[in-house]
Order: sequence, then structure tokens, then C-alpha cells
Amino acid sequence: MFGPDQDVILHLLEVPFVLEALNGVVLELEDGGYPLLRGIVATTEAEVAFKDVDVAILVGAFPRKEGMERSDLLNKNAGIFKVQGEAIDKVAKKSVKVLVVGNPANTNALLCQHYAPSIPKENFSALTRLDHNRAKAQIAKKLNIPVRDVHNVVIWGNHSSTQYPDADHGHVLVNGEKKSVRDAVKDDKYLESDFITTVQKRGAAIIAARKLSSAMSAANAIVDHVRDWVLGSPEGEIISMAVPSDGSYGIPEGVIYSFPVTCKGGKYTIVQGQHISEFARKKMQATYDELADEKQAAFDSIKQ
Amino acid sequence: MFGPDQDVILHLLEVPFVLEALNGVVLELEDGGYPLLRGIVATTEAEVAFKDVDVAILVGAFPRKEGMERSDLLNKNAGIFKVQGEAIDKVAKKSVKVLVVGNPANTNALLCQHYAPSIPKENFSALTRLDHNRAKAQIAKKLNIPVRDVHNVVIWGNHSSTQYPDADHGHVLVNGEKKSVRDAVKDDKYLESDFITTVQKRGAAIIAARKLSSAMSAANAIVDHVRDWVLGSPEGEIISMAVPSDGSYGIPEGVIYSFPVTCKGGKYTIVQGQHISEFARKKMQATYDELADEKQAAFDSIKQ
Repeated sequence: MFGPDQDVILHLLEVPFVLEALNGVVLELEDGGYPLLRGIVATTEAEVAFKDVDVAILVGAFPRKEGMERSDLLNKNAGIFKVQGEAIDKVAKKSVKVLVVGNPANTNALLCQHYAPSIPKENFSALTRLDHNRAKAQIAKKLNIPVRDVHNVVIWGNHSSTQYPDADHGHVLVNGEKKSVRDAVKDDKYLESDFITTVQKRGAAIIAARKLSSAMSAANAIVDHVRDWVLGSPEGEIISMAVPSDGSYGIPEGVIYSFPVTCKGGKYTIVQGQHISEFARKKMQATYDELADEKQAAFDSIKQ
Repeated sequence: MFGPDQDVILHLLEVPFVLEALNGVVLELEDGGYPLLRGIVATTEAEVAFKDVDVAILVGAFPRKEGMERSDLLNKNAGIFKVQGEAIDKVAKKSVKVLVVGNPANTNALLCQHYAPSIPKENFSALTRLDHNRAKAQIAKKLNIPVRDVHNVVIWGNHSSTQYPDADHGHVLVNGEKKSVRDAVKDDKYLESDFITTVQKRGAAIIAARKLSSAMSAANAIVDHVRDWVLGSPEGEIISMAVPSDGSYGIPEGVIYSFPVTCKGGKYTIVQGQHISEFARKKMQATYDELADEKQAAFDSIKQ
């Protein structure tokens, strides 16, 4: 994740009632013999966990359960991300890069950012790389080509079922020939319907099959996200990161929204100038509207 | 595991009642976007799973549960490894490399070998690399050095609590200086007691903490084992593999026993000529005796 020569000290934060299991994880990490793993700090204290960290990956959150009111959900997460945001604000490096994975990830990242005002706003992100990888995998499957030959298919908006997986600017390599995804797939209806809904509902499909949330593919996407952010994205490759909107593509500031980005020198840049069709505009607006609603409800819950 | 340029087709074998979960794993593998993963075959049929494979990793087995009679255990595993061994014999490449992980791993590997007589005997192995990695980690911890600076600490015998973790021929790098483990640790009593029992009982310690068997560290050790076997072990590095005894060090043929080995060109070689102390000899004999007993019971159970 940080390159082949970068020693790593892992700080692991858990809630007290699973501390013993966390200690089991520490034993397994020791037994892994990972040559770059130079230390492990396992703790239940946020201010110990975030002390001087360069990268914070916030995996834990309170996911929505059946029958749960939305206000309950936002309230519970506001509590978690207040504690973590405040600790990051107080003890992490000011250059810390934060990746929120726990759902609702974009709004949790916004809460965390809110409680860590001393950290630059652009250092907060949420994970849509898993959706991005899923979108690429669907195109690869459709064309029966390796996923490494699919490029620049991206995700807009919220890491939720309103996300907009967008293949309009993607390209593929088919029998050595570079083509736009649209020209290769030759099925606009698929790209505007089944492709989108399959990616949007992929998380639910995995839960239905495994009776557990995606784990391996989520971990893999976390590695992709952080590696590209820290070490740079591959030349010519556009990836997806949910980051604070700067007004690009007419998405108002004040939400954490997934954009097409490239990374270099430890910074991401939102890719500008992509043509947005009317179809795309509607999808991008719908997922923005959901984020604006989530934000409102989350900040209402803080005030209560 | 097979190097940075080797495409891989994964064959996944499961029992019918968890086929849906296996399909969830397939979805996650697709979503991983692994550039070298060129195909997935998910099946409940051993003869589909093992068809033309180059490497077979047998993770599933029937582990001993509380209150279970040993004969039941061996009987259940004989059933599993008969089916898998016969399928390997019938449909795998004759050059297939087999790694048995499911416990009792050494004896399960022996059963598998028995039912696959058309495959060279030396192509069957069992996993003691996890124990090997655990042993190195303990020495690293004791000396407060990175695990990458610990070398040639090895495991003899059975992947069980009778195994003999042996630091006698190991060396370490402390402050840039190469020393024998014994000279660096300066605590023979530790090396002949706590060091050994900690490694022997590490699996149980992890189960106690996690309420689950080791998973991440076992997967990591599998990768180490297969990578070194296929691509060669690092120059100067001695690793541990449970392989058919060829009589080396007085261990009779007919059991799968963990030895210090090196690998080159897809073949392992048992390291010869290591000095064996009286203490070591006793430990090596005790773990052999257990394997001979297990073998007897397993083959008795086949005959019934």
C-alpha cells in the first residue's frame, strides 16, 4: 500500500468488548512475518490510535440495520465520527490523509472533517474505489476481456445505491485495439440500465450470497485508494475518490462526492472538462440530492 | 504467489451446502480487479476442481472437535482425502504440486498421496510454514529486531503440538552484526522451553483470542510455501516444508515430516548435515512417533 520499501507501524483501534479478538489479530500480524511491519499499537483509545498517524482508515461505523430509523443511524454515526474526528484533530499529523469506509461513508467523512477543523478539508475522503473496481469488472465481464484492459470507468456521488457508475469516458483494449467502452460494448441500453444497477446493487448481492458484507474486495479497494493517493495513480488512469466538492461539474461545495480524479505527489486532482450528457447530469444530481439530505439529517442530529 | 507476470485461473471447490457463499466469494474476486486473475471455476465436483491444475491447495478438512474420538477424526478425513486424492490422480497434471493445510495436515497429505499413486510422491506436502513464521516472529520479538533479520529457524515433524521448533542453526542480524540465534538470545533455557511451547501452542492461543482459527497468517504462510516451492527460496534462506521423508536425519520413510529445505527450479531439497543435539534428537523422535501413530490409525480406518 505504501510501496515496497516503506516501513509501517499499524495503529489498531477497537471498541472495548472485542479487545481480545483484536489481540488475536495482533498475534496473527506477528505471525505473518511481514518484513515492513515495524510495530503494532492495539488500543481502545482514539487519542492513542490516531497519535501522529500519516494515514487514518476509518472502517468501523454503525451500519443501517433492518427496521432502524434513519435518524437513529445518523445519530449513532455522528457519535462515532465526533470522537474520531476530535481525536484526529488533536493528535494526528496535520498532514494526515483520512479515508472513511464505514457507511454511510461520504456523510461520515463529512462529520469527521467537521470535528477536525485543524486538518485541511481536502485530506478527508470516502471509499468509492470498490464501486469503481466493480464497474470495471462488469465491463470486463461483458466484453470477456481481462479487467486490466478496462480504463477510466468511474463513479460519481454517494457510496450508496444512488451512485452513478459512468462508462462514458472509459476505454478498453480489445484484441490489442483501443476503443471507447461505448463502441466496444455496442449496447447503450445496457450501459444506461443493467450496468448501472448491477454496480449500484453489488454490495447487496454479496451480502445475499455470503450473509456477510464484502470484505476481501473492500480491503483490496482500500489498498488501491490509499496507494494511489500516497504514491500517485498510474499515468493515464482516472480513478474514483469521494472527496470534498470544490464546485466542479456544478456539484455544490459542502458534501463529500465521488469524482473522477488523478493523483500525484500525495494530492488528488479532480479531472476537469469531461462532457456530461443529460442522462449523466440527472444521475449526478440525484446522488447529490441524497448527499445533501444525509448532510442535513446528520447535522440536525448533532444539534439535538 | 506465482510472480508478477503469471496469469492465474482459480479453481474453487466447496461442499454443496455452502455453494451460495462460494458464489459470493466469486463476486468478490471479480470485484477485486486482480490483473492476473484470468478465470474462476467454482464447483462442488472434485474432478472439475482438480482438472489440469498445476497447484492444489487443500484447505478443507474435518478438524478435531471437543469430545471427538480420534478414530472418528481420522475416518472423516480419510473420506475427504480419498475423494480429493483420487480426483487429483485422475484429472490433475502429473506435475501437480499438492499442499495440504487442513488438519491433521501431515497425515491428510499422506492419505492424499496414497490415493494418487500416479503423481510423484515428492509432489505432496503439508504446511508447516506458518509454524516456521511463528518461530521467526518469536525470536524477533525476544530480540526486539525486525522479523526480516531472523533467518533459518526451522520446524521439524508434525504440524501439531509435538512439532519441534529449532533455533539451533538460525542466525540473526543485530545492529548490523550477524550472530547465531543462540549467541544473540543468550538464554538457552528460553530456547529449550518457552520458545518451543509458545510456537507449539500458538494456534491454540489464537483460537482462544479470536474464537476462530488463524486465517490471515495461515493464508500468508500458504503464499510463502507455494511461492518458494514454485519460484525458489531466497538465496541462503532455509525454510520449513512437511514433505515425504527420504530417511534424512534418521526419520524413516513413509511419513510426511517437516524438514529444513531449500527450493530451486520447482523442487525442494532437504538440507543435509545439520548437527542434531541430543535434545533435538528426542524432540524429533517424539514428533515422528506421533506421525507414525497417526499413520497407523489413518490406514486402519481406511481398511475398516
